[in-house]
Amino acid sequence: MTPIPVLHPDDPRIAAFRDVKERDLTGRQGLFVAEGEVVLRVLASEASRCAPVSVLIAEKRLAGLRQVLERLPDDVPVHAAPQDVLNAVAGFDLHRGILALGRKPEPVAPDVLLDSLSERAVAVVASGVGNHDNMGGLFRNAAAFGAAAVFLDRTCCDPFYRKAIRVSVGAVLRTPMAAGLDAEAMIDLLQGRGFEVLALTPSADQALADMKPARRTAILLGSEGPGLPREIIARCRPVGIPMAGGFDSLNVAATSAVALHHVTTRRQE
Amino acid sequence: MTPIPVLHPDDPRIAAFRDVKERDLTGRQGLFVAEGEVVLRVLASEASRCAPVSVLIAEKRLAGLRQVLERLPDDVPVHAAPQDVLNAVAGFDLHRGILALGRKPEPVAPDVLLDSLSERAVAVVASGVGNHDNMGGLFRNAAAFGAAAVFLDRTCCDPFYRKAIRVSVGAVLRTPMAAGLDAEAMIDLLQGRGFEVLALTPSADQALADMKPARRTAILLGSEGPGLPREIIARCRPVGIPMAGGFDSLNVAATSAVALHHVTTRRQE
Repeated sequence: MTPIPVLHPDDPRIAAFRDVKERDLTGRQGLFVAEGEVVLRVLASEASRCAPVSVLIAEKRLAGLRQVLERLPDDVPVHAAPQDVLNAVAGFDLHRGILALGRKPEPVAPDVLLDSLSERAVAVVASGVGNHDNMGGLFRNAAAFGAAAVFLDRTCCDPFYRKAIRVSVGAVLRTPMAAGLDAEAMIDLLQGRGFEVLALTPSADQALADMKPARRTAILLGSEGPGLPREIIARCRPVGIPMAGGFDSLNVAATSAVALHHVTTRRQE
Repeated sequence: MTPIPVLHPDDPRIAAFRDVKERDLTGRQGLFVAEGEVVLRVLASEASRCAPVSVLIAEKRLAGLRQVLERLPDDVPVHAAPQDVLNAVAGFDLHRGILALGRKPEPVAPDVLLDSLSERAVAVVASGVGNHDNMGGLFRNAAAFGAAAVFLDRTCCDPFYRKAIRVSVGAVLRTPMAAGLDAEAMIDLLQGRGFEVLALTPSADQALADMKPARRTAILLGSEGPGLPREIIARCRPVGIPMAGGFDSLNVAATSAVALHHVTTRRQE
């Protein structure tokens, strides 16, 4: 790994990193931008499902990151720039000093993904989760509890958005997923493969804590605010997490952690 | 409630709302600034432990918020400004359109707070939690699961910081708390009152899921990254949440949700 010095924000070799925030919104045709050391470590590891494409870091971070950077394939250029050039490229004060460009994995058909799951798999399923913090939290928790896959319906936001990747501490880059599905079709598919789909909803009569999860369980979470639509809940087994008086609901990422902990520790043998 | 029209950002009646972000950092001598409708509802409710002092909202939000604003005491002025004036006062684009100034509650001595707790109380205890998102999440989860009190050691950040209040969905304003303590002294006090203090740590031999919580339980959480110091853990009952391969730990707010769920649903009678 020989770092390529970059001394001007208009250097064409780092054009892909220009105006990070604006391009977060317009998209990058199959690529994504990630930031920070934790995420770079995942991207450079064998656990990553995404290929690294290019890296841009602050000169002062080169020495400390050499070990991680050596793990990148030889054809991935590592650009090193003074902090002020880095800030000018990104368009904001990039105190983390690390940007990486990666390629999203090829989409996997949901039934192909399902075929790859074990008889005791736990899946996380999201419908209408539109907040990138929550999306990142879902992925982080899914990975932390060893969920085998994440399924996202077509009304979810893109998990490869910079902030979602960061909040997930890189879990977005390593977790098998299928996205862009219709919620009903997704539930049908999971149930057809023997998954019990638990719909987490404050409206449920049954408390999560009192139920014995099936060997194959899918945890379905909706958006904060409106929550899961009634017709979706009706297709699943509704379970709730009772709240103390005056409190409406947990954050969706916190809900996923509670449900994943219960399911992974109380499952039928 | 008669709104006071404000047409200029330099109007001295709203000086307390000027340069919100800068003043977040320098402090407000016993006052705090909160934002958004959810938090305003808590501040105007009987559940709030904090007195509202002043409100500044976008004109266009007046009609929709009239019911909430009517609940404020008569001596709390409600200022209404055009959106561009509001933005100029705050120093950023305040699309929520609602700022409220409140007074922090009088500090409560930890032993007085402990005297007020029931025989089946659950407490949340934080040591070294310095991230405002995590602090807000801790409070939100404490309130959601009906924790009776939150104890913060002297190395925690201020929960009355604007972002922490927002993430807590107002729980910071209603939850009894004692702050600024020494971690060891805090643990001694809790144990002296019959609380079993669970130290949540990846280093624990015992899994949270396998333990039966005591009637009076305190859940102790450390910062992300370094976690709880060894000498603190040694004073408590260490419990862990086992992670899937390759994953270090959960976010501290997610950890609190998992622990609170377990403790509140599996406690001894």
